[in-house]
Amino acid sequence: MAERFDPNFTKMVVEAMGPKTDPRTREVLGSLMSHIHDFAREVELTIDEWMIGVNFMNTIGQISTAQRNEAHRISDVIGLESLVDEIAHRHVSESGEIPTSSSILGPFWSPHAPFRNPGDSIMQDPHDGQVTLMHGRVLDLETKKPIAGAVFDIWQASSNGKYDFQDPENQSPNNLRGKFRTNENGEYHFYALKPTAYSLPTEGPAFKLLSAMDRSPWRPAHIHLMVTHAGYKPVTTQIFPKEDPHLEDDSVFAVKDDLVVDFVPLEGDEKATLELEYNVTLAPVVNPNAEDANVSRL
Amino acid sequence: MAERFDPNFTKMVVEAMGPKTDPRTREVLGSLMSHIHDFAREVELTIDEWMIGVNFMNTIGQISTAQRNEAHRISDVIGLESLVDEIAHRHVSESGEIPTSSSILGPFWSPHAPFRNPGDSIMQDPHDGQVTLMHGRVLDLETKKPIAGAVFDIWQASSNGKYDFQDPENQSPNNLRGKFRTNENGEYHFYALKPTAYSLPTEGPAFKLLSAMDRSPWRPAHIHLMVTHAGYKPVTTQIFPKEDPHLEDDSVFAVKDDLVVDFVPLEGDEKATLELEYNVTLAPVVNPNAEDANVSRL
Repeated sequence: MAERFDPNFTKMVVEAMGPKTDPRTREVLGSLMSHIHDFAREVELTIDEWMIGVNFMNTIGQISTAQRNEAHRISDVIGLESLVDEIAHRHVSESGEIPTSSSILGPFWSPHAPFRNPGDSIMQDPHDGQVTLMHGRVLDLETKKPIAGAVFDIWQASSNGKYDFQDPENQSPNNLRGKFRTNENGEYHFYALKPTAYSLPTEGPAFKLLSAMDRSPWRPAHIHLMVTHAGYKPVTTQIFPKEDPHLEDDSVFAVKDDLVVDFVPLEGDEKATLELEYNVTLAPVVNPNAEDANVSRL
Repeated sequence: MAERFDPNFTKMVVEAMGPKTDPRTREVLGSLMSHIHDFAREVELTIDEWMIGVNFMNTIGQISTAQRNEAHRISDVIGLESLVDEIAHRHVSESGEIPTSSSILGPFWSPHAPFRNPGDSIMQDPHDGQVTLMHGRVLDLETKKPIAGAVFDIWQASSNGKYDFQDPENQSPNNLRGKFRTNENGEYHFYALKPTAYSLPTEGPAFKLLSAMDRSPWRPAHIHLMVTHAGYKPVTTQIFPKEDPHLEDDSVFAVKDDLVVDFVPLEGDEKATLELEYNVTLAPVVNPNAEDANVSRL
């Protein structure tokens, strides 16, 4: 099909990059432009379709604010963040064992979550959810020994499906966010909510894209985790209650089998009615001086 | 290289489109998502690079206004509008002759350009340019006969390199824009400026992208034309003075050999010092009822 069109055009565009172009920039943008051209030729993109795309692209930034990152959400809806996450974090240890799977960061992580004390609650404000005692250990993939002093960063939506900065009328800053350090036995514990499923916003470009693809805007209920310790590959992930009906059609393709967990009834704790034990396994960094792209988030 | 990654992921994302998806939408978005995934795997896109892309995408819409279409400009800089134009307009007649080449619309066409009388000037406001008598004929590709009543729509930047709506301090609305109808001999004539080269804006996302690629933001001097008549494929194009130094590195890849023209000295006309004869050849529509994507612009 491509022979119908000038076979030199894409090469000419890619080779227009000047000699001072950074080599990695040349590689990334050269590949990106080539794939966009291949796409246009493959579907014989019409002028009207191209113009729909141009207008759509402008709407992405126009709706974005400090509290809403629509380009991030669009890339989640097309599976790009999940794919980039896979590229960054696929890891098979020499033993063949694998660490806790990573999943996407999503647009709601905050660098400002406070450190809280072991056993604290991350709920600052009223909610209609089920309180859960979440606990477990952080372990070294190779030695199976506990990792003391690991930082366990958790964030989740409230029982109305909204995160603190989406919901300033009902939630104070850092509600349902917190960082905890593991003790000498690698243990953490705190009180959180059993998470609630929520829909992506049902207006705006990402929803328009989902609707055009006849897809659900729902995400399965989930808790976000980011677990870090010097000398280990950090893991950013999400865990999902096993009974959620949206595990199979997550709008952002973040579910992996080993991230599906079981909340069980808890008795004898007046603060919580459910319990979740969840252990995290981190892979040691082979070359501690190697750059890990994930670190720059922190 | 792709085997390092889950071979089913992209298929799963594409097949998530529901049964009510419009077939063409399925084709276009399926191809687009597949190519974006292939790109990410091919370059092993890092999380930091992806995040740079997400932030960049938001800036495109944030700088766009009714007077500035940055997504359109970005797609020009990566050659996409030129490619879509090629896909839409490549035409070889049965005789092997080809009509006037099309080129990109660009972001400065206006639906509001007034009809002017034959021989009028499109200059409403003061300028420092060289006035040119532009004239010629519009011809049928097959019969070589003149086309009467064709609409010749012209727009150009002023001698400061700006279009009317970029430059409200110096230019009134529709300065350097106008529509003319060809007479019974297919002839048009009017006064315009010899065009001036200009740079794309040297701030904003498109300039950032050009700079990252060590490319010039300059466009060669050009006049925009859109020539239409019922029963013919419309042509949107640009013509370029042959001596322009930026013919070889046009920032939006719009130059084609047959669009390079020669402005010659003119004597005996007190209104103009230059003359440009330019004939346009239009291809008849084989099936006059067939939809032409270009028509919807008009």
